[in-house]
Amino acid sequence: MALTGVLRPGFVQIRVLDMKEALTHYCDRLGLFEVSREKDGRVYLHAMDEFDRHSVILREADQPGMDRMGFKVRTEHDLDLFEKRLRDVGMEVEHVEAGEQPGVGRRISFVAPTGHRFDLYAEMEQSALPPMTHNPDVMQVDPKGMGVQRFDHCLLYGDDLDGTERVFVEALDFEVSETVTAPDGTRIASFLTCSNKAHDLAIVRHDEKGKFHHASFLLEDWSEVGRAADIITRYNISIDIGPTRHGITRGKTIYFFDPSGNRNEVFAGGYSYYPDNPRRNWDADEVGKAIFYYERVLNDRFMGVVT
Amino acid sequence: MALTGVLRPGFVQIRVLDMKEALTHYCDRLGLFEVSREKDGRVYLHAMDEFDRHSVILREADQPGMDRMGFKVRTEHDLDLFEKRLRDVGMEVEHVEAGEQPGVGRRISFVAPTGHRFDLYAEMEQSALPPMTHNPDVMQVDPKGMGVQRFDHCLLYGDDLDGTERVFVEALDFEVSETVTAPDGTRIASFLTCSNKAHDLAIVRHDEKGKFHHASFLLEDWSEVGRAADIITRYNISIDIGPTRHGITRGKTIYFFDPSGNRNEVFAGGYSYYPDNPRRNWDADEVGKAIFYYERVLNDRFMGVVT
Amino acid sequence: MALTGVLRPGFVQIRVLDMKEALTHYCDRLGLFEVSREKDGRVYLHAMDEFDRHSVILREADQPGMDRMGFKVRTEHDLDLFEKRLRDVGMEVEHVEAGEQPGVGRRISFVAPTGHRFDLYAEMEQSALPPMTHNPDVMQVDPKGMGVQRFDHCLLYGDDLDGTERVFVEALDFEVSETVTAPDGTRIASFLTCSNKAHDLAIVRHDEKGKFHHASFLLEDWSEVGRAADIITRYNISIDIGPTRHGITRGKTIYFFDPSGNRNEVFAGGYSYYPDNPRRNWDADEVGKAIFYYERVLNDRFMGVVT
Amino acid sequence: MALTGVLRPGFVQIRVLDMKEALTHYCDRLGLFEVSREKDGRVYLHAMDEFDRHSVILREADQPGMDRMGFKVRTEHDLDLFEKRLRDVGMEVEHVEAGEQPGVGRRISFVAPTGHRFDLYAEMEQSALPPMTHNPDVMQVDPKGMGVQRFDHCLLYGDDLDGTERVFVEALDFEVSETVTAPDGTRIASFLTCSNKAHDLAIVRHDEKGKFHHASFLLEDWSEVGRAADIITRYNISIDIGPTRHGITRGKTIYFFDPSGNRNEVFAGGYSYYPDNPRRNWDADEVGKAIFYYERVLNDRFMGVVT
Repeated sequence: MALTGVLRPGFVQIRVLDMKEALTHYCDRLGLFEVSREKDGRVYLHAMDEFDRHSVILREADQPGMDRMGFKVRTEHDLDLFEKRLRDVGMEVEHVEAGEQPGVGRRISFVAPTGHRFDLYAEMEQSALPPMTHNPDVMQVDPKGMGVQRFDHCLLYGDDLDGTERVFVEALDFEVSETVTAPDGTRIASFLTCSNKAHDLAIVRHDEKGKFHHASFLLEDWSEVGRAADIITRYNISIDIGPTRHGITRGKTIYFFDPSGNRNEVFAGGYSYYPDNPRRNWDADEVGKAIFYYERVLNDRFMGVVT
Repeated sequence: MALTGVLRPGFVQIRVLDMKEALTHYCDRLGLFEVSREKDGRVYLHAMDEFDRHSVILREADQPGMDRMGFKVRTEHDLDLFEKRLRDVGMEVEHVEAGEQPGVGRRISFVAPTGHRFDLYAEMEQSALPPMTHNPDVMQVDPKGMGVQRFDHCLLYGDDLDGTERVFVEALDFEVSETVTAPDGTRIASFLTCSNKAHDLAIVRHDEKGKFHHASFLLEDWSEVGRAADIITRYNISIDIGPTRHGITRGKTIYFFDPSGNRNEVFAGGYSYYPDNPRRNWDADEVGKAIFYYERVLNDRFMGVVT
Repeated sequence: MALTGVLRPGFVQIRVLDMKEALTHYCDRLGLFEVSREKDGRVYLHAMDEFDRHSVILREADQPGMDRMGFKVRTEHDLDLFEKRLRDVGMEVEHVEAGEQPGVGRRISFVAPTGHRFDLYAEMEQSALPPMTHNPDVMQVDPKGMGVQRFDHCLLYGDDLDGTERVFVEALDFEVSETVTAPDGTRIASFLTCSNKAHDLAIVRHDEKGKFHHASFLLEDWSEVGRAADIITRYNISIDIGPTRHGITRGKTIYFFDPSGNRNEVFAGGYSYYPDNPRRNWDADEVGKAIFYYERVLNDRFMGVVT
Repeated sequence: MALTGVLRPGFVQIRVLDMKEALTHYCDRLGLFEVSREKDGRVYLHAMDEFDRHSVILREADQPGMDRMGFKVRTEHDLDLFEKRLRDVGMEVEHVEAGEQPGVGRRISFVAPTGHRFDLYAEMEQSALPPMTHNPDVMQVDPKGMGVQRFDHCLLYGDDLDGTERVFVEALDFEVSETVTAPDGTRIASFLTCSNKAHDLAIVRHDEKGKFHHASFLLEDWSEVGRAADIITRYNISIDIGPTRHGITRGKTIYFFDPSGNRNEVFAGGYSYYPDNPRRNWDADEVGKAIFYYERVLNDRFMGVVT
């Protein structure tokens, strides 16, 4: 399989109300490592199994939520190509200069029909503490907290789900791995992938634009989901739901909130996606099982609490 | 990421000395399901999490070993394209008619410089018992035995490792994720991927052509590797090594032999590969740790016993 | 440590509304094995890691619930001793003849102050399919369904909690490992052990006498709790809560209902208890965390739904 | 079950060649916590899930090995009782004054026929960092390294196996849960328990007196055995064997060496023992499977390397 174009979710910039509390949460509890703290106040974090310099950016603000999500593409040339294709599907494309984030090359940026800002970029410096590559150990440092391996994906809520799905499919070559559909045919949720992962981005239809449901981080397996749950209660972190499993993607998961009210997920597992797989579809009346496979009902927070 | 060209290892045809014993092994112990038994005596098997009709083909013969390994490509057009590119790197390409395997379309086939036969094909009927796609459960039937999810990859032994690596990289767009190299620069082992998996094919340098080290099947996690080990001893299956872990790919693994002496692996885990990852390299004097991360030495069987 | 007197929970007799559905549930889903079906209609079941003939008895009736729970004592002489001590604390003791359950010796029986009937017995025939003892494999047969290893304990609801606790402590040498206590000092829940297990019997204060909260079965680890959860949804079994963890005992658990509405638990883990351990105590306002460590709140069903 | 007499293995005093290296090993890698360092140079360690002050004592010396192993008994009165019974089976009993180990009451001490010194004691101060008991969390501090929960048992090598077994059974009320026996009836190995654990002490017949095979520490489950294996290779700890499983006790295990050459085990699982269980017996020609259930052969180190 030639792997071209958009490679993966590369970073997410999250707004937090109190940086100190946020760092305790993301570093000591989730297990991210602080990379740098810049003059504009943004703090850059890195997960232990990522080669790139950073994957999470925290920005102190009055309201929680997501500022932007970035996808890494394979080549500089892809940026030019995707800029054209984004314009072809009606997106306004902005340029972000190299260095706006330390160690990151030029980005192109657009606001999708659901109101979320996405960036594409081809260059990021390698981490100062990447996975080893010469006679590599399976880990370079002892994991801390939940020991998340990488930033994995986001679930976003917004109004024009069809519009955003169309942009990602038509301009950026994503595929729709899984959907939830109302009886009248309205798409309620769309799970999009640009890789062998069951999803790299998920979108749920919602009245407001630009809402952030969660950022998700990868764990090794179900055993680590259980250990994450122990940490969540031990440190009195606000839980949403779990440990449980998603029917969609089959991921084993737990949801909780950072101190600013942004939802996080840590998860493991899920099927491998291939572009010749038939699409998986869920009926709206099975959405409970689709989202929380064990409980088989949604909790109110899942639909209502977003930042 | 646009996923194009070669998608994945799709099937392996294995020679067995006694079909009945082989079926007990592959179906009752590994957990494959019998799909069909054809007039020419070949028996077709399917793993529980595969959409395609079959992935393992057993053929009764006087000598164990691998007849051929097939890769599924995305489109019929890819077959024409790869035929040309294979010829461009000096491969003789044969045509195999649709239907030579039941439910499989036309294949192109070549013998790589290490003496192994590989097929490419774009079409295979869907399994009669595939993963569910409408309000899907995480499994359709109870797993049996080790409960392998899919055929995952092969490790092959042969003389002209550089030649075969070159064919897969130059003609088929594979990437080399990891290598083992001798002090004089000779490549001892090469791990090749066409996906986000750490490897889809592995080759070790060896005096003889066309040797088969193992076919590997995916499990969910380390816990299932342990359960597989219980089954191996309970049913007196000949073990090679494990449970252990590979330094290369980081997979958690156990090796054992089918009743004909062909080596099998069941494994879980391993890193996700992306084409912008730096290549991982092992020195020859660390090959023990590379292959068996916990033991840090090779056993004699790993280098010597192939079929 | 000399292990004397009451050894362990040995059996539970459960009322079910439909025997056929019950057997599908307890045998195919939990993984018990049918031992015998007697003329009076009772069906005797056995778990794969138990030496004794049976541990679960199903009786078809108009109302679900628990008929009786039996404890195995070490010697026949213990029965005489405990009869006297039970009478000393005010219990009426009945004699049940050997053979009332097939393969079981004479029992002494009493109704505790909470209205539950308990039996003590010293003799039960060995299972026809016990764990192996000569060059034993770790399992004799492949596990099926959830693969429960043994019947482990019951949680019972009743009014005179203090009375029943007193009987088990004063007459039967149980110890109280853990409690939940109201601000006024009223005991809300009591966890009792006669072994190194964190509990062999649990009692919760409740308005009605003789109620059955759940029978619990042991699994190997958290990984098996997850597999049990998959089976529960796959076979559309009514779930109560989980996978989660208890603060009390630390067990990792999932609760669900048999087709008659009796609650079952499958669980793994929990601390080892020793008689020199200080007692663990929970305040009533932390009862949510005590029962469901991750959710930190009780669901209504936990307190209200009993049979 | 009334739990009386000897409760459990309470401490082991191990000789190490270099205290600094030993502390890195036992604290940073296994996850014990340093409790105190006394004037005589001994360092006292504690595991995270133990109530007592210490369980491992390191003493710097010229030769590695075990100085003594201590068992906690339930009452002071038990000490007097066991002293008499030990003398009755021919043991010389010494008195060790309270305070010889900080926080520990008077001990009685004897050298068993295999040449190992054992102590019994009834009183030890509670740890400054014990498991919580009031609204307890499942852990008080984050685990570090392998996160061992407790010191669990020792395996000792010595000549007069029958003699030592007899002392533990006849004077101290241990039971023999499992044995390995030569064709001529000679006992090769004996596994002894004073609890519901499959073993609290194990002895293997060996030419020399007083040899130390390993001290063992408890982990939660197989998943943690895997994580321990990662740490062993990551920190270049000398491995013996594993991850594997014992046929005897069914424990899931990994063996490795401390920097002084003393063998350690970390393990999880194993059956629950009850005094009415039939004894499990292994024939000598199945000893490989008995010890290493997956490999089914002993490695030379298992029989030959002791300290």
